[in-house]
Amino acid sequence: MRIGQGFDAHRFAPAGTKRELWLACLRWQEDERRGCEGVLGDSDGDVAAHAVIDAVLSACGLGDIGVLFGVGSRSRGAGMHGDAMLGAVGDHVREHGWVIMNVSVSIVGNAPRIGRRRDEARHAMSSALGAPVSITATTTDGMGFTGRGEGIAAIATALVVRG
Amino acid sequence: MRIGQGFDAHRFAPAGTKRELWLACLRWQEDERRGCEGVLGDSDGDVAAHAVIDAVLSACGLGDIGVLFGVGSRSRGAGMHGDAMLGAVGDHVREHGWVIMNVSVSIVGNAPRIGRRRDEARHAMSSALGAPVSITATTTDGMGFTGRGEGIAAIATALVVRG
Amino acid sequence: MRIGQGFDAHRFAPAGTKRELWLACLRWQEDERRGCEGVLGDSDGDVAAHAVIDAVLSACGLGDIGVLFGVGSRSRGAGMHGDAMLGAVGDHVREHGWVIMNVSVSIVGNAPRIGRRRDEARHAMSSALGAPVSITATTTDGMGFTGRGEGIAAIATALVVRG
Repeated sequence: MRIGQGFDAHRFAPAGTKRELWLACLRWQEDERRGCEGVLGDSDGDVAAHAVIDAVLSACGLGDIGVLFGVGSRSRGAGMHGDAMLGAVGDHVREHGWVIMNVSVSIVGNAPRIGRRRDEARHAMSSALGAPVSITATTTDGMGFTGRGEGIAAIATALVVRG
Repeated sequence: MRIGQGFDAHRFAPAGTKRELWLACLRWQEDERRGCEGVLGDSDGDVAAHAVIDAVLSACGLGDIGVLFGVGSRSRGAGMHGDAMLGAVGDHVREHGWVIMNVSVSIVGNAPRIGRRRDEARHAMSSALGAPVSITATTTDGMGFTGRGEGIAAIATALVVRG
Repeated sequence: MRIGQGFDAHRFAPAGTKRELWLACLRWQEDERRGCEGVLGDSDGDVAAHAVIDAVLSACGLGDIGVLFGVGSRSRGAGMHGDAMLGAVGDHVREHGWVIMNVSVSIVGNAPRIGRRRDEARHAMSSALGAPVSITATTTDGMGFTGRGEGIAAIATALVVRG
């Protein structure tokens, strides 16, 4: 049995960019975004998915998201959505003989408001990864880059076992 | 066996507010607070307790602190101290058939100085939750919102097993 | 079986300080540092090693880095490198009857760029601790104290078992 830690943070696009907001494998509509834009990134900028990926890969001793997908606009992750990346990671670690027990991710940011769609997000992430993913969400009371609404962060931990 | 991640951050009240400072299920006296006020929040603002709660609930797949207690000044958590909230969470997950193996929380902030009362805090949190809680504490060398003394943050991880 | 959480953050020395940069038990050369100085601290300021130490000690219920090494310039940790501290922690917890299953640490910062030397860092940390250590690395897209290049942070989680 092994555990892993993951972290990621991405910046909201400037106002008026009309970039879609993807988080926890869901697209968030205008009225759920509380004035925030989509998130910048070579992929869809889904920090929850990325933190989960790093936690799982680290638990299995298989590097991190940059090792699997590359870094930058010409990486294999460019343009990919979180669910496709989670699916590829699930397959990758299973091919290496690991079983993912579960993953838990804490999303930190002002928007979107996760609560109302938590179950939907949980099902989307779990289904994509092929293992249970739990989601908690909180803010930082207006403090720091998440509190000022500059971006979103996510911290994840994963438990895996040799199959 | 399942793991969970939790995070929380709260802001110190403005100077002169005379708000009590509660953290890790202890009340911290004037001379332990290094000039910091109590922490704002609908409950007592105990970030260590709240991060532990999110970690435990997430490990058990039972949502987060907002699901159990609600959010805002009219929530069931309003006015509650960390020990009462931890107790309710311990009962809740045990009713759902889970056994909490242990929880570990890292407190990040300038004040209060945890070290001298670590054992007392550890006993208070463990006794309230009904499972072992370990506490580490550090600062951010004057950087970020914790380093500027604007508030306190806590990161927690929990290990649970089906009873 | 028990888990632990660890966190640490340290500040880069002012430009021109010519302080060596140590992270993840490696010394990073000028061309890997992307303009960043070494890290301030009573020890070598190796946040990855320190977060791992707190995670391991917390999992074993043996306090944190301050309990084992003391705090400040007259502490036993003063002047120590991460590998020596990790070795002392590994010995300490084994003497108390614990076996470290594995540790995973997420390094957050602009520099150094971990990717190219990840395997080397992983081997250095694992060898020093006497147990597998996995490493992931990310940035915060220019946000917060890590994004502004003021310092580095690390979040770690450890899994241990009674021997």
